Amino acid sequence: MEMAAYTVDALAQLRDRAPLVHNITNFVVMETTANILLAAGASPVMAHCRAEVEEMVALAGALVLNIGTLQEDWVEAMCVAGEKANALGKPVILDPVGAGATTLRTRAVRTIMARCRIAVLRGNASEVLSLVSADVRTKGVDSSLALSDDGVAAVKALALEAGCIVAVSGAEDCITDGGQVYRVANGQPLMTKVTGIGCGLSAITAAFCAVAGPGAGDHLAAATAAFAYYGICGDRAIQTSDKPGTFFPVFLDRLYDTGPETIRAMLKVRAA
Amino acid sequence: MEMAAYTVDALAQLRDRAPLVHNITNFVVMETTANILLAAGASPVMAHCRAEVEEMVALAGALVLNIGTLQEDWVEAMCVAGEKANALGKPVILDPVGAGATTLRTRAVRTIMARCRIAVLRGNASEVLSLVSADVRTKGVDSSLALSDDGVAAVKALALEAGCIVAVSGAEDCITDGGQVYRVANGQPLMTKVTGIGCGLSAITAAFCAVAGPGAGDHLAAATAAFAYYGICGDRAIQTSDKPGTFFPVFLDRLYDTGPETIRAMLKVRAA
Amino acid sequence: MEMAAYTVDALAQLRDRAPLVHNITNFVVMETTANILLAAGASPVMAHCRAEVEEMVALAGALVLNIGTLQEDWVEAMCVAGEKANALGKPVILDPVGAGATTLRTRAVRTIMARCRIAVLRGNASEVLSLVSADVRTKGVDSSLALSDDGVAAVKALALEAGCIVAVSGAEDCITDGGQVYRVANGQPLMTKVTGIGCGLSAITAAFCAVAGPGAGDHLAAATAAFAYYGICGDRAIQTSDKPGTFFPVFLDRLYDTGPETIRAMLKVRAA
Repeated sequence: MEMAAYTVDALAQLRDRAPLVHNITNFVVMETTANILLAAGASPVMAHCRAEVEEMVALAGALVLNIGTLQEDWVEAMCVAGEKANALGKPVILDPVGAGATTLRTRAVRTIMARCRIAVLRGNASEVLSLVSADVRTKGVDSSLALSDDGVAAVKALALEAGCIVAVSGAEDCITDGGQVYRVANGQPLMTKVTGIGCGLSAITAAFCAVAGPGAGDHLAAATAAFAYYGICGDRAIQTSDKPGTFFPVFLDRLYDTGPETIRAMLKVRAA
Repeated sequence: MEMAAYTVDALAQLRDRAPLVHNITNFVVMETTANILLAAGASPVMAHCRAEVEEMVALAGALVLNIGTLQEDWVEAMCVAGEKANALGKPVILDPVGAGATTLRTRAVRTIMARCRIAVLRGNASEVLSLVSADVRTKGVDSSLALSDDGVAAVKALALEAGCIVAVSGAEDCITDGGQVYRVANGQPLMTKVTGIGCGLSAITAAFCAVAGPGAGDHLAAATAAFAYYGICGDRAIQTSDKPGTFFPVFLDRLYDTGPETIRAMLKVRAA
Repeated sequence: MEMAAYTVDALAQLRDRAPLVHNITNFVVMETTANILLAAGASPVMAHCRAEVEEMVALAGALVLNIGTLQEDWVEAMCVAGEKANALGKPVILDPVGAGATTLRTRAVRTIMARCRIAVLRGNASEVLSLVSADVRTKGVDSSLALSDDGVAAVKALALEAGCIVAVSGAEDCITDGGQVYRVANGQPLMTKVTGIGCGLSAITAAFCAVAGPGAGDHLAAATAAFAYYGICGDRAIQTSDKPGTFFPVFLDRLYDTGPETIRAMLKVRAA
C-alpha cells in the first residue's frame, strides 16, 4: 500500500466526517486526549459509567479503552462497552497503560482481551511486551526502549495470538498484524516528556479506524497512517519549540493545520 | 439595561471580591475550569464528595453543576449541594453536558431541576433543546447549530417553564428569562475546538452571578455580561492565534487582562 | 549547609536517576503534576486504587498524598500506600489541600498523619495553620497570607509535634524541621493564578526527597532545594510572560532547562 496517499485520504475523511470517539480513559489524560482529537478534526466524548456506556458507544465511530488510573469497577464498564462496540461492528482500541507494573493492570488487559475483540492494541514497548512471556520481555527491549529484532518477532507473535493489530510506539514505531510489518520513523523523543501524548495517539488511531473499513487490513493501514500523521506533527512542532511546555500547544496547532503536501513531503514509513 | 456599563462594573466587582465558585464538574475540564476562573479573578474549588459538598458550598459565592463524565453517585451529591445553595440563597448554574445523548444524562438533568432551583441553565443548542419536545428539537437547530427562530421560541418557553435563565452558546448566543432576550455576537468558532471552553463559560457565569443580586433580572444581566466578556476575550485571543493549541493560553491571558476600555469598544450585545 | 551547591547536585541526581514519583492526588492537577515532574526530569505515575497502590509504591522512589477532590474511599488507599512506603523506607509527602475548609479534609489529614510517617508536609499558610490551634491560626497569617512571626513559631511547633518537615509556600517560603528554618525568596505571586503549581511543588519535593538520604536533615535540605529550584523557574518564566495562560508552558520549559549556573546566580535562600 502507498502509505502517503492513504494517509492523506484518511485524514481528509476524518476531517470531513468528524467521527465521534468514545474514550474510557484515565483521569490524567482526559483533557489532553479531547484536545488532541478536536485539533485533528474528530469529536471526543468521555463516558465511563456502566449505566451509559452502551448508549454512548452506539453513537460513536470507535471506542478507546485505556487502563491508566484504573479502578476495579471501570473494568466491567470497559468490557460492556467493548462488547457493545463488537456487536455494532465498531473498532475498539486498547491502550494498556502501565501493564506489567501491577497485577490489577495486567489482569485488566487480559480480562478485556478475553471479553472483547480488539482492533488495535497500542502501547510502548515495555507495556506491550509485558503481555508476552518473561523471556521475550527481557530480550525484547534494549536500554533505549527500542524494539530489538527479538522484540519485533514477539510483537508479531502477539498480534497473531491476539488476532489484532499491535502498534508499538518507540524510536521507530512498529505496527503489525502478525504478517506485514510497518515501521514509522516520524516522531520526536520530546513527545515522551509531555503526559498524554502517547495516550492521545491511541485516540487518534481510533479516529482513523472509525473512518476505515472493518477488516484487519483496514485497521493495519489506519493505525500506520495515524502514527505517521501524529509523528509528522511532532516533527513539525519541534521546529518551533524543543522544550516540553511550549512544544505541546504547538503540537496541537500542527495536528490542526497539517495538510496533504506536508504529509507527502515528510512521511517516513517503510514496510519491514 | 446598558450592557457595556453593567459588564464593566460586574467584572470590576468580580476581581475585587474574588468569589469562591464551587464546581461539581466533569473530569475532563476540572483543570481548565480552575484556570479560567483564576485568570478572570475568581477563586475555584472542586469538591464532589457527598460528605463535604454542603460545607463547601456554604463557603462559596455560587455553585456549578456539570454533568459530563457522570457517575450515578455524583447526582445525589449535586442535588444535596444544590439544595444547600438554595437554602443559603446562592445561585446554582447547571451545565447539561451531553443531555440528550444518554438516558443517564437526560434523567440527571431532570432530577437536578426537580430538586434544585436553578439560576442559569447554560449549554449549547443541542443540549438545551434536548430538554424540550422532540418536535422543537428537530426544528430548533440548523445545520450550523445556530438557533432558528423556532429555537429561540423554544428556549424562551423552557425558561418560563423551568423558571430560570436559559443561556445558549452558539454563533450568536441567546440569553433569556422567557421574556427579555439578549443576543451576544462576541466569540469565535475556534472556541469549540478546545475542550472546556464551553464548560468554563458556565463557571464564569457562576462567578458573575456570585457578585450580582439574587433576582432573575440580576441573573439575566449577569449571564449576559459573562457571555459578552468571555466572547470578547475570544475575539481578542484570535488576533494572536487562530489555531487551537496556542489559542487557549492566549485566551487565558485575555481573561486576565481585558479591561473596561476593551469591553466598551468590543461588546456586541443586542436586546432581541 | 550551602544550599546553592546542594540544589545543583540534587537536581543533577534527579535528572540522572529519573525517580518514579507515585501520586495519589486530586483530579484537577493530575495532568499538570505529571507534566511538571516530566519537565524536571522525574517519572510520574498516578494510581489510587486500593488494589494496586502497594505494588505501585514499591516501584517508586517517593509517594505524594494530596487530598484535593477527596473521596472517602481514597483515604484508605492513601493510608495503605503510605504504610507500605514507610515499611520500604520511601519518603511520603503530604499536601493538605483545602484542610480547614471541610471536616472531611481536616479529618483525612489527621487520619493520614496518625497512620503514616510523613517526611514533608507541604501546603500554603492557611492549610498548614488549620492543623494547629484556632488561636494560632488567627494570628499566624497576615492579610497577604504571608507568615507572621507567630506563624513561623506555629509552623516550627507543628514540625516538632508531627515529627516531620513542614514546608509552607508563600511570599517567602518557610521550610523547617522544628529547629532549623530556611526561608526561600524565589517564586512569583503569579504562580498562585495557575491551578496545580502549588500541588506540583509537592511532587517536585517528592522527587528531590527520592534522590536524598533517609533522615530528617536530608528531607529538610531536599525540600528547601525543591522550593528554591521551583521558585527560580518561576522567576525565569515571568521574564517571558507575566500573564497566567502563557506563563505556564514557559514555566515547564524553565523546569526543563534550568541548569547549575542559573541556580547559583538566582538562588535566594537564607537560614532564619
